[in-house]
Amino acid sequence: MEAVSAVATTLFADRLAEAVERKRSQLVVGLDPRSDLLPVELRGDARLGREQAAAACERFCRGLIDATAPYVVAVKPQIAFFEALGADGIRAFEGVCAYARSADLLVIADGKRGDIGSTARAYAAAYLERSLHGNGEPVADALTVNTYLGRESLRPLLLACRREGAGIFCLVKTSNAGEDVQDLILSDGRPLWHHVARLVAEWGEDLVGERGLSSVGAVVGATHPRAIGEARRILRRAVLLLPGVGAQGATPADVARAFTSGPASALVTVSRSVIYAFRVEGGDWRTAAGAQAARLKRDVWTVSGW
Amino acid sequence: MEAVSAVATTLFADRLAEAVERKRSQLVVGLDPRSDLLPVELRGDARLGREQAAAACERFCRGLIDATAPYVVAVKPQIAFFEALGADGIRAFEGVCAYARSADLLVIADGKRGDIGSTARAYAAAYLERSLHGNGEPVADALTVNTYLGRESLRPLLLACRREGAGIFCLVKTSNAGEDVQDLILSDGRPLWHHVARLVAEWGEDLVGERGLSSVGAVVGATHPRAIGEARRILRRAVLLLPGVGAQGATPADVARAFTSGPASALVTVSRSVIYAFRVEGGDWRTAAGAQAARLKRDVWTVSGW
Repeated sequence: MEAVSAVATTLFADRLAEAVERKRSQLVVGLDPRSDLLPVELRGDARLGREQAAAACERFCRGLIDATAPYVVAVKPQIAFFEALGADGIRAFEGVCAYARSADLLVIADGKRGDIGSTARAYAAAYLERSLHGNGEPVADALTVNTYLGRESLRPLLLACRREGAGIFCLVKTSNAGEDVQDLILSDGRPLWHHVARLVAEWGEDLVGERGLSSVGAVVGATHPRAIGEARRILRRAVLLLPGVGAQGATPADVARAFTSGPASALVTVSRSVIYAFRVEGGDWRTAAGAQAARLKRDVWTVSGW
Repeated sequence: MEAVSAVATTLFADRLAEAVERKRSQLVVGLDPRSDLLPVELRGDARLGREQAAAACERFCRGLIDATAPYVVAVKPQIAFFEALGADGIRAFEGVCAYARSADLLVIADGKRGDIGSTARAYAAAYLERSLHGNGEPVADALTVNTYLGRESLRPLLLACRREGAGIFCLVKTSNAGEDVQDLILSDGRPLWHHVARLVAEWGEDLVGERGLSSVGAVVGATHPRAIGEARRILRRAVLLLPGVGAQGATPADVARAFTSGPASALVTVSRSVIYAFRVEGGDWRTAAGAQAARLKRDVWTVSGW
């Protein structure tokens, strides 16, 4: 039974590569809904209760999906912004994920989860598996994860990568100034994050698909252009998920060297500069987001050299 | 206004110390509800849908709170097990947290969250702050956090510690075999987790209360008895949260040296060996959990030397 389902399941890396090539897009839009930043037509003038705020955030994300779907290969809902609205927020998160999948987009749940094995199994169930109690599809195609707890904490997630065709993106070098931990120098002279990158490469070896890419990817901040090249060298087969373009200051040109392992070997994720474009540029929020996404898609595809 | 609320708010570390001394307990019960392990009277015989499974998990946790409240100072719901049941699970999580607070227990939400600053603000709002959209109390008193993203990612949570009287427990040395990252040796010859411990001590300096303990605590697995002594030396003022006693193999005696900074300077957290005690010992599940908690409370208080 397990063998059958393993054969029937396409690896995440292959599903992603197919979608990137078909859409000619390596762009991912990050869905970070903040009720206080929503268009006034969605948030109204009054102070919203949680249920109303969650409903407004869901409408916002659905509108963004409609507007950007032609230009992006995946959406990356940041779970924290939904968690901030409690159970109503999580209901909205589930609605947004289902809506994105129905629009033929991949869903990367951004939760940076990580815990010991028995708890990691619960995270796999929550995001990547056809649940014991649910009916049908997993909530997301991939999950971002934190690796401070080591390989043992990843095992249930790696199993979901194999059995369910899921993907994970491991934090390697984040887009913020995380240098007080990630840049620590180890006894062999290398920074900590190089070591983590090597672990991630190793964990992904058994999950390499037909296009030569692994379902175990890595998060590398586009705000560190030199780090992208170093990560690419260590992680030849990983899909690099690159936040930091736009509001955090990086440009499409900064990420060019990430794409040397294939057109789908990196994904550029943009959040605020797309979803809140209307706050800078005025006009309809959907139109503003769609225009930004279209422009970034072209720019990234061009610098990727494919 | 801010100054007033800062004065009016008691630091988490002081609230904890008061509760530990009043109850003569340093025991925390971890609430890790798994629908497949529930007592048959709660799960029934049929395959549960998500909503029913979440309701059953909530009843289980409420029963555990009733049974163990006299013996424990706090509960530690593991969010992952609630997340695995989606929005229904999070609704149950909220109900469990509110119920525990009404039973005069502190609530340590175990999520091991960690992200860049703008997202960390959302986590603070989700768990530690009186929400923009909620009415009244924060969901939890404290949150476990992952520090791989460095100080910048902790700032909004540290602010919640100051303004809301919240606490955080930073992952330092976890109870699993996380040695592939945490035990890496740095260029100065020390393991990575020692460095993280030192950062945690530094982050907590401004949040030391009247009993000499900080609201910035640290998670140190009781499965590494030698590490407890080392962590205690580095983190003189931190409350050490010690998982691993019971199902993971550590004994109360293994944690004795954690308590040298005061009766509330360490908390022993037990999950499976208490909440699923009925599966080993038979009888009523509440009675079994209460008996285990009562025994562990006494054992820990004794080894703590207070």
